[in-house]
Parts: sequence; C-alpha cells; structure tokens
Amino acid sequence: MVSRGDGARQRMLTAALGVLDESGLAGFTMEAVARRAGASKATLYRRWPTTGALLVDAMDTTFRPLPTPDTGSVVSDATEILTAFVTLLERTPFPRLLAAFIDAAERDPALSKLHTDLTSRRREPMLVVLARGRERGEIGPDTDPELTTDLLTSPFFYRHFVAHRPIPRGMVAEVVERVLSPKT
Amino acid sequence: MVSRGDGARQRMLTAALGVLDESGLAGFTMEAVARRAGASKATLYRRWPTTGALLVDAMDTTFRPLPTPDTGSVVSDATEILTAFVTLLERTPFPRLLAAFIDAAERDPALSKLHTDLTSRRREPMLVVLARGRERGEIGPDTDPELTTDLLTSPFFYRHFVAHRPIPRGMVAEVVERVLSPKT
Repeated sequence: MVSRGDGARQRMLTAALGVLDESGLAGFTMEAVARRAGASKATLYRRWPTTGALLVDAMDTTFRPLPTPDTGSVVSDATEILTAFVTLLERTPFPRLLAAFIDAAERDPALSKLHTDLTSRRREPMLVVLARGRERGEIGPDTDPELTTDLLTSPFFYRHFVAHRPIPRGMVAEVVERVLSPKT
Repeated sequence: MVSRGDGARQRMLTAALGVLDESGLAGFTMEAVARRAGASKATLYRRWPTTGALLVDAMDTTFRPLPTPDTGSVVSDATEILTAFVTLLERTPFPRLLAAFIDAAERDPALSKLHTDLTSRRREPMLVVLARGRERGEIGPDTDPELTTDLLTSPFFYRHFVAHRPIPRGMVAEVVERVLSPKT
C-alpha cells in the first residue's frame, strides 16, 4: 500500500523530473520544483538537503531496472538486460535527463560523483548475470566482469548520445555475440 | 604560411570555443562570439550562416586527429588511435565541449544531425586501420568494421561521460585485446 507520505514524495520527484526536462539543469532549483509540485521549499528541504540529493532520487526513478533475469544462460540474460536498456533509450525521457546530467557533471565534481554512484547501481544486474555465467563455466575465469559490462553496454550509449544514429534491430544480438562468444 | 584571413578565422573559432566553454550552449550566440573575438556580427555571418555551422567548425578544431597510423599491425594502429583519444579526453577542453553538445543535441534535431556528421569524420581513421587489417588477414572478412569501431571506442566515452571513472593505464590494451583478438 502506498502511504500518504509516499504519494507526496512521488509527486515531488515527478515535479523535479518535469523541471529538469523543461529547463535543464540551469533551471533546476528547489524553488522551481516546489512551485511545480505545489509544495513549500521547506517541505522539499526536509526530504532532500541539497538539489543534488533531489536530482539523484529523481534520476533514479527514471531508471527502473527490471528484475535481474535468470534464464540459465548468460547470453539470454545479457540480451534481456540490453533489450530493456535500448527501450529505455528509445522510448522514455531517460536519455534527455541523462544528457543534461552528462553536461552538468562535466562542470561540477559533486554531480559527477553522484552520477558515478547512480551508474554503479545500474551496472549491478549485468554484473550478477556475468557472475552466474562464470559459475556455470560459460565465461572464462580470467574474463574481467567490469570490462565486459563496459563492452556490452557502452556501444548503446555511444550510438544514442554521440553518434546519434538509430539502434538497428539485431544490434543487441551482435554486441552480445562479439563480446560473449566463447574463445576456443 | 597562414594568410591574414586564416588568422582571423582562427581567432573567431577560438572565441567561439571560449564562449561555449564559459556559457554553455545556452549562451552561444553570434553576438557573444563577435564580442569576444572583437569582430562584427556581419563578419561572422559572412563566414558562418548559422550558429550551428559555426559550432561545428569550432568543435572540429578541438578534435585534431593525428595522421592515421600505418605500422603494419592492426593492433598497434588501433592502440595508437585510442591512446591519442584518451589523451584528448583527459587533457583538453574537448570533453566539456562534447558534453554541452550531447545535451543540446538531445533537444535539437539539427544539432543532432551536425553531430552525426562530426562523429563520422572522427571515425574515419579507425575504419581505415581496420580495412588495412582486413586486407592483411589480421581480421576475419565477416567482421563488421562499423560495429568493431563502436566496440573499440565507446568504452572510453562511457567511462568518461557516464561512469565518470578514471581511465586506467592498460585499459586501451585490454579493450584492443578483447575486441581484436583473433578467434581461432
């Protein structure tokens, strides 16, 4: 059951995302979020001591990870995670918010640190899936899981944010094959 | 020899980068660039019909590609390109400018198109190096050069702009080995 407090919190986070999407980080102030949420600045400050803390919670709600898949095959599990991620990139406000964050983090070390933490949380499901694949012997024991996660996920960020090219059907399968195909 | 016209052009591009770095894209106007360059707006418009055109030329000067390496080995050539790229990410204003561009491109399809063109130009040296490796038989004939370029370069973008983690010594060698190691 959602308590009254949870509803209020969600309304404030939704307002924060609205402000971020419309005005970018330059316009992201407690005042603007309070106005949009119909709340007082004091109420916001009670929950979030800084705009950075509010921003991170708001960003986190745009990235709702699926339950970590566990199909018994590392290829299927990685494919499922990456397919969900492509949907997030192509069908939600997530990339616009992330782009604003990328720009701001480049200028503000505190935001950069916050984004490091958010990114670590987002990497968790892939790391779990790779660890299970290693236990089952599908991935060699010398394969670095962190680098493997970079190789699997970064091409999709790059396509979207740098190359600005559509992500073709089949790209998930190709990346998974290139990165996870066993070497004999 | 640099002609008087080239010197003036370079001064305007340097001013454009200064405005972009200080004020972000929100403050990137012909007026601001003209003021900083000590030139008239008319002079700027004579060379660049739109702020977008000026922006692209300015961005292009921040990314000075090395001559495409040709050592006779695809691994050495790719390593050389990626090492130069890491230096660009860690030691120059390039990433701050690119971050501003990433944010702006997400909101403006015209800028997104311009960035696609810039990115294609930047990918050229790696594609040349991979094509030579294919001719020499170092890379299989079925290996997609575009996807290989994505896999080689995107982990560095991701580390810097998304994960905000330092790029460890040795990461270039690891990525090259994972992506280009011949499959037997």
